[in-house]
Amino acid sequence: MISEERPAASRAQNDLAARVLAGEMRAAARAMRLVDDRTGGYLELLKTLYPHTGRAWIVGITGMPGAGKSTLTDRLIEHERKRGRKVGVVAVDPTSPFTGGAILGDRIRMQRHFLDPDVFIRSLATRGHLGGLSRSAGDVIRVLDAYGCDTIFVETVGVGQDELEVTQLAHTTVVVMPPGMGDDIQAIKAGILEIADVFAVNKADREGADSTVRDLEQMVMLTRETAVAASSASSHTNAHAHRVVREERVAGGAWEPPIVKTVAVKNENIAALFTACDAHRAHLETTEDGARKREQRAREELATIFRDTLLSEAARRIGGAQEAALAQLLRRENDPYTVSEELVRSLVGGGSA
Amino acid sequence: MISEERPAASRAQNDLAARVLAGEMRAAARAMRLVDDRTGGYLELLKTLYPHTGRAWIVGITGMPGAGKSTLTDRLIEHERKRGRKVGVVAVDPTSPFTGGAILGDRIRMQRHFLDPDVFIRSLATRGHLGGLSRSAGDVIRVLDAYGCDTIFVETVGVGQDELEVTQLAHTTVVVMPPGMGDDIQAIKAGILEIADVFAVNKADREGADSTVRDLEQMVMLTRETAVAASSASSHTNAHAHRVVREERVAGGAWEPPIVKTVAVKNENIAALFTACDAHRAHLETTEDGARKREQRAREELATIFRDTLLSEAARRIGGAQEAALAQLLRRENDPYTVSEELVRSLVGGGSA
Repeated sequence: MISEERPAASRAQNDLAARVLAGEMRAAARAMRLVDDRTGGYLELLKTLYPHTGRAWIVGITGMPGAGKSTLTDRLIEHERKRGRKVGVVAVDPTSPFTGGAILGDRIRMQRHFLDPDVFIRSLATRGHLGGLSRSAGDVIRVLDAYGCDTIFVETVGVGQDELEVTQLAHTTVVVMPPGMGDDIQAIKAGILEIADVFAVNKADREGADSTVRDLEQMVMLTRETAVAASSASSHTNAHAHRVVREERVAGGAWEPPIVKTVAVKNENIAALFTACDAHRAHLETTEDGARKREQRAREELATIFRDTLLSEAARRIGGAQEAALAQLLRRENDPYTVSEELVRSLVGGGSA
Repeated sequence: MISEERPAASRAQNDLAARVLAGEMRAAARAMRLVDDRTGGYLELLKTLYPHTGRAWIVGITGMPGAGKSTLTDRLIEHERKRGRKVGVVAVDPTSPFTGGAILGDRIRMQRHFLDPDVFIRSLATRGHLGGLSRSAGDVIRVLDAYGCDTIFVETVGVGQDELEVTQLAHTTVVVMPPGMGDDIQAIKAGILEIADVFAVNKADREGADSTVRDLEQMVMLTRETAVAASSASSHTNAHAHRVVREERVAGGAWEPPIVKTVAVKNENIAALFTACDAHRAHLETTEDGARKREQRAREELATIFRDTLLSEAARRIGGAQEAALAQLLRRENDPYTVSEELVRSLVGGGSA
């Protein structure tokens, strides 16, 4: 992994990189395959592309199964194409070989864009990527960015911990809610509040949409109050205090997720959703809060790639020793804590610091 | 992390370990706090306890929000107590500080067991544990095991990737489904098929329970056919072939998850669910397939603890260098791949292997 690239491979990757940067679709497809498979000098390629990244706007789309994420993403692609933007889509599937077809079938809704040379759709399966999905997704996003995509949608299936990591790759995350969640919102709000920059209550022509909007409004308001209670010694809870607090928070640059009702199948309110997303983008680009979030993103990006590089190198160096250690454990001759310490010591050199 | 324990701390931990092994509840509570916080010579403690683990039966309980997992777990605790077994419960919450109360409130259903000295319930929050949850959960389970629990339930909220890792700690995983999932089963079956040893269709007195059972049966049957198609050149799909195939698979020791209808609030069919779980336990203990799964569990346990030990040690040694690298990235003077390689090289020593 840390070994030097052979010059020939390096030349081939430089050539491929040049074709990606020139906007050749087939080169981009090949680059993404290499990056996802982690073969063929993919690291050299990523290093070459990296200085040309950082221009794309990355929008995460997540939410409960059945909320209509694929249809909504399809509409968002359409909207961006009408603005003349080149679009990338990374669709993250928690698939197994057995069920692959079922979820990918869902993506058929997006397939009308396959003929458009300015829309690039790439699926990523979580299987076999345990712990490494956010690295792969990040790498694929960087290729799309270098390829010249203006907007990159990252669509994930739910709000699990793994997808939370993937969503951290996005600048703006849209959480899509179906109407009539009722009590279930209680159970999932922990996850969604943490990641939502914008809420879309989709299928808003169905019963229960308004109550979902109210539930979300209440959640957002409670978060605000909790934040204020935590940051101020006195705790006024009357309407006047709320207004003052809200103004302070807006001045201080805090962001409160707007809630937009949409009907993706009827193409209703998609522009309003984008207005909310654009506002969040402007917020990121112009406020201190946004600068903090950019730094946080860079920190996570580095931590992910570092962790992955370290674990790959460790696996390469001590794969055999780990098998021997496992045999010890199965005979119950040692405990996994002592064994792990010994393995780590053999890798990074001994002793206490 | 790899530094030697001070003798005084070591003595204190040995004393605590002895009290845990003697079955002192307060000692177990203190040990779990140390292990979860990773303070106070917790590693020394875990090493001392480890030889006394491996006796408990670990049962994972997972499924969609709203499937009634907490109520079902409550019934399972009751059932095990009636069999005279000492019970541990690890409840994994994907909470944020703001929402902590909401989900923990759900656990009130289990609280009647708090007065029973032979039931130990411990909550684990995923927050702040990103990537490390399965290590923490595993460590807490090992303390409960050494403390003398016969059965340990691990209850998680959904079927995300992170919870999949946690569920891998279990010997037997029960996936709890609400009735009337309909098309949504399509979206989530990838995750549940991978982890389910037993299905419980809970709230089975409600509409849609039978169709959920049928959907699950079909999924299980399709998996079987896929496995057969993959492992045999010819692909008979008539009823006779199915029967032959099934017999072969049973003889070969493969396990097919049984599907049990339950009504936890009315305490209906809990015994049948346990019969299915017991059958899975017997399968693990007596078949080659079971032996393979035990080895797989040991492998994952070691991999998790090794990964965690390595990343902790890396953070301890190069925390400062990582901050400097981040500053470079924010100025876009370098790319994260090169920076990560440099950091790894400084940690494990240079050059290609």
